[in-house]
Amino acid sequence: MDDRTQLWNDFAAQLAVDSIRCTTAANSGHPTSSMSAAHLIAVLYADHLHTNVAEPADLANDRFVLSKGHAAPVLYSALKAIGAISDDELLTLRRFGSPIQGHPAPVPELPWVDVATGSLGQGLPIGVGMAFALRLDGSPGHVWVMMGDSEMAEGSVWESMETASYHKLHGLTAILDLNKLGQRGPTMHGWDADVFRDRAEAFGWSAIEIDGHDVAEIDAAYTRARDADRPTMIVARTEKGHGVSLVANAEGWHGKALSAEQAAAAIDELGGVRNLTITPPKPESFIPIGSGAAIAATTPAYEGPIATRKAFGDALAWLATLRPELVAIDGEVGNSTFTDDVLAAAPERFFEVYIAEQTMVGAQIGMQALGKVAFSATFGAFYTRATDFVRMGAIGRADLRLCGSHAGVSIGEDGPSQMALEDLATMRALHSSTVLYPADGNATVKLVTAMCDLSGISYIRTTREATPSLYGPDEEFPVGGSKTLTSSPDDRVTLVGAGVTLHECLGAAGALAGEGIAARVIDCYSVKPIDAPALRKALEETGTIVVVEDHRVEGGIGDAVLDALASTGPLSGRVFKLGVTEMPGSGSPTELRAWAGIDEASIMERVRAALG
Amino acid sequence: MDDRTQLWNDFAAQLAVDSIRCTTAANSGHPTSSMSAAHLIAVLYADHLHTNVAEPADLANDRFVLSKGHAAPVLYSALKAIGAISDDELLTLRRFGSPIQGHPAPVPELPWVDVATGSLGQGLPIGVGMAFALRLDGSPGHVWVMMGDSEMAEGSVWESMETASYHKLHGLTAILDLNKLGQRGPTMHGWDADVFRDRAEAFGWSAIEIDGHDVAEIDAAYTRARDADRPTMIVARTEKGHGVSLVANAEGWHGKALSAEQAAAAIDELGGVRNLTITPPKPESFIPIGSGAAIAATTPAYEGPIATRKAFGDALAWLATLRPELVAIDGEVGNSTFTDDVLAAAPERFFEVYIAEQTMVGAQIGMQALGKVAFSATFGAFYTRATDFVRMGAIGRADLRLCGSHAGVSIGEDGPSQMALEDLATMRALHSSTVLYPADGNATVKLVTAMCDLSGISYIRTTREATPSLYGPDEEFPVGGSKTLTSSPDDRVTLVGAGVTLHECLGAAGALAGEGIAARVIDCYSVKPIDAPALRKALEETGTIVVVEDHRVEGGIGDAVLDALASTGPLSGRVFKLGVTEMPGSGSPTELRAWAGIDEASIMERVRAALG
Repeated sequence: MDDRTQLWNDFAAQLAVDSIRCTTAANSGHPTSSMSAAHLIAVLYADHLHTNVAEPADLANDRFVLSKGHAAPVLYSALKAIGAISDDELLTLRRFGSPIQGHPAPVPELPWVDVATGSLGQGLPIGVGMAFALRLDGSPGHVWVMMGDSEMAEGSVWESMETASYHKLHGLTAILDLNKLGQRGPTMHGWDADVFRDRAEAFGWSAIEIDGHDVAEIDAAYTRARDADRPTMIVARTEKGHGVSLVANAEGWHGKALSAEQAAAAIDELGGVRNLTITPPKPESFIPIGSGAAIAATTPAYEGPIATRKAFGDALAWLATLRPELVAIDGEVGNSTFTDDVLAAAPERFFEVYIAEQTMVGAQIGMQALGKVAFSATFGAFYTRATDFVRMGAIGRADLRLCGSHAGVSIGEDGPSQMALEDLATMRALHSSTVLYPADGNATVKLVTAMCDLSGISYIRTTREATPSLYGPDEEFPVGGSKTLTSSPDDRVTLVGAGVTLHECLGAAGALAGEGIAARVIDCYSVKPIDAPALRKALEETGTIVVVEDHRVEGGIGDAVLDALASTGPLSGRVFKLGVTEMPGSGSPTELRAWAGIDEASIMERVRAALG
Repeated sequence: MDDRTQLWNDFAAQLAVDSIRCTTAANSGHPTSSMSAAHLIAVLYADHLHTNVAEPADLANDRFVLSKGHAAPVLYSALKAIGAISDDELLTLRRFGSPIQGHPAPVPELPWVDVATGSLGQGLPIGVGMAFALRLDGSPGHVWVMMGDSEMAEGSVWESMETASYHKLHGLTAILDLNKLGQRGPTMHGWDADVFRDRAEAFGWSAIEIDGHDVAEIDAAYTRARDADRPTMIVARTEKGHGVSLVANAEGWHGKALSAEQAAAAIDELGGVRNLTITPPKPESFIPIGSGAAIAATTPAYEGPIATRKAFGDALAWLATLRPELVAIDGEVGNSTFTDDVLAAAPERFFEVYIAEQTMVGAQIGMQALGKVAFSATFGAFYTRATDFVRMGAIGRADLRLCGSHAGVSIGEDGPSQMALEDLATMRALHSSTVLYPADGNATVKLVTAMCDLSGISYIRTTREATPSLYGPDEEFPVGGSKTLTSSPDDRVTLVGAGVTLHECLGAAGALAGEGIAARVIDCYSVKPIDAPALRKALEETGTIVVVEDHRVEGGIGDAVLDALASTGPLSGRVFKLGVTEMPGSGSPTELRAWAGIDEASIMERVRAALG
């Protein structure tokens, strides 16, 4: 056995031992899923993951994504071996307050982890985004994604396999840890590596079958994968719990720590505790080639009616000229959401993933992790396809800029399958989220501009049809603010709208004025954070608030308004919520808003009854 | 040309003509995506879709799912030809109030449509569920799913390809309408039918390549597919807009109606308006073999602590003995959610789809469409993978019974990727939804029992850890009700909890009593519908409500309580919401509830501050 072979095997044994030590200390976690990956990780970190440990943000670095996030102990053990964390830190696994969480998360103390994993099937879409970003920058970095065999059942894996081969992302390698045991028992295909090899090849990848505990085979496969002209999947047959007779290839050991006694015996069997220090290979230095240039564009400004979705596209294309890090990802609806405007302005920074929303958001997570200001857009309804990715993005401290178009019943004839009606509820509930909903083109431009500098999840909701211009191009729209469009000391009611319903509120206020009822109108363009002081003032001054939204009555603007009022003091007065309560069908936007009870006439009726 | 060939071609021309007529009448819609499928649909409805038109619910019928739902006009045109709807009805396409919506939906007037489509990539998962149900009943019915090539980019397609071959669903055929033009332009693979053939074969299907406008090839392929020993994909090269020179294989015609003049010329080119009446082949009669028998079980009842997730499994296994139509679908977490108890009790009615949540819910939609009382379960966090499927289920009037386990920060050490923290917000916002959250085992049994008879989307949220028993086994838990656990005329505050936080509320109330503060405690086990009268009474009698939930502070129980109060009269008093506002890490359940400010001590602090 040559020196390198010895080192790899020793390192693998150390990773297995440390995975056992930290899970036994935590009395929970996944030692056996870590042990199946130990040799794969050892060879990767020792000789193939080009990374500058002291500079984890260096764009020349290779990237490693542990898609099978429950095997976090082997990752943390590798981070210990490369000197990123200490052995003491490793042993805080799963403790309250520790950055060494049950599944990897890029908390500030752990800059060697780029993204959160733990929801299966997300690593490869994220890796696609990283490979996009590295290629755009001209980085020599390679992306390595380790996957488990259970997660191969997730469709998101095959979505991103397709994207990777279509876009010829040869800078991406998937390492499949085929340990053949899932949470409940055997996986569908066991050790039939050829199933995955054949599928990968049918999806346009190269594929290599290896013994995942044979370090020479692993080493050779990594070299071939890095040099391949297409993305490569390495299908590695492994044993769950490898190296310890008690748990090796044994059912009933998923997600279970060894007792102290079992651990001691296991560590003995693995040759005892080691303290190897590993220095991964250095990345090649490179000079970023810079993102593609953009055609200069003038600041969008509108006087007449414009659809906010079109203003979004105009704004994004314009911002692309100002911000070289801005990229846009499309789920094959760019001619509807108007991300196609970015394609026209900065074609290298437009990424088409076709109708694959999970990959769209996954790739976005990967791109922002490498410093891109990444926007994605699809129909608001279809972000529901990627809710888990947005959720994991929030956990991963990702800055995701999302645009959901075609909001509400106002899309009209296409019917409910295309209508975003629950998007505000879901997006509001996410940690770190900002939820914006402009009513005109100029507001849209300002809010999209603001999104470039927001952290966390920001979501802008746009409307299919054109809406009149309400604001001049110089009006400012601070996040967390609102606009009071009509106001007088005689106001007896406040109408709160956003997006398309703001126009209905304005119409109603005008008509109510004719009936002698003064109504205040507030544009709640910032749904989260919401302008609580303005709303409280309105309730105190007018006594009655009517919130009108083209969204389900639960979880949206109405609930946000009630929350703002409850959070800022005692409640008094009345708050009425007008929103969608039944299941729409087809119809014109006007018919459907009337049917839903969110149009001008419905608002007036509600106000008359309330003030009656 | 023989008579049958003539008929098929005439019928196809009629379908194309009628697709043009109705979209031109509507001035919107998808004629060209309908025309590519005309021959495929013609041969299917004329000679292969065994169906009793007068009895669309007949379980002997074949099933047709139009996964490319935007081609609805060709489906409606076929329904006209078989006498299900009239020509006048066809021409109401996309009009307000018409059942002939922009995308197919199973409204009561249209019993020939089983499920809603229009969000791409959902038809095949649904077809998998239909094939499961037909096989379980011993029906001779075959399931035909028509897919578009753009939707082949959706991972859900490949998820369900895997499920179908793994479960040897030879009663399922996918018809791929390879018209090579998507919404924005060319698809990834154009007319490269071999790409899809190879992938289908790699996924364990048989595959047949045909010319999708050659009726003899279509007929032969359908016969082979029905007789195959495995699921079959028919890859049919077609032309978008086939038969009309203006639009045939032309870009820029996606989702666009022809003008009246263009339509007239197109109809001429297609040979004019026809009024063929088609009688599909009759289904074979069969005697349902009945669902698998279940091992008798006693009614679950608890005295000591039990995890509500375990009570869910116990209840489901017991209900399986009482209800032969009950089925359970698992996403490979059945030993965590305890659907494994159904596997033990009634193995034929337990369906394992592995880690494929989109397929899990899609299959559930398919099974309930054929009369099954279908439950699915996974971690509440992972339903976010299938949000779009649940949303489309609501649009499709599906009765979906969902159990989300491992709710909240209370799961502890595994960390945020495994925590359901936004599930109540999303589930509450869905049309027709019921949201339940029991605090003990006996309540769980009653609520799971109630779910069997609920229509629409019902969601029960369960807890990982054991919680004490609060109720006897005979206590009733009506949907929309609540339980007031402590109450006195001296109550100065009301604590509202559900699930795990109810126990924290009870602890706080006990401790506050020691400080001379009488607190009412309400178990809000029915989050939607919520017990508005009890909450209003509590606000009026105690003046202050503190809502405590192991969920994000947005969109959950707190918002539901505020909504209930606002909906039932003027607001007065104070409502405080305690929920999760920051990003959790790992820790023990107790540590994390304290950190989130939703434990007994935090509640007491909030009450003291509010009343101080």
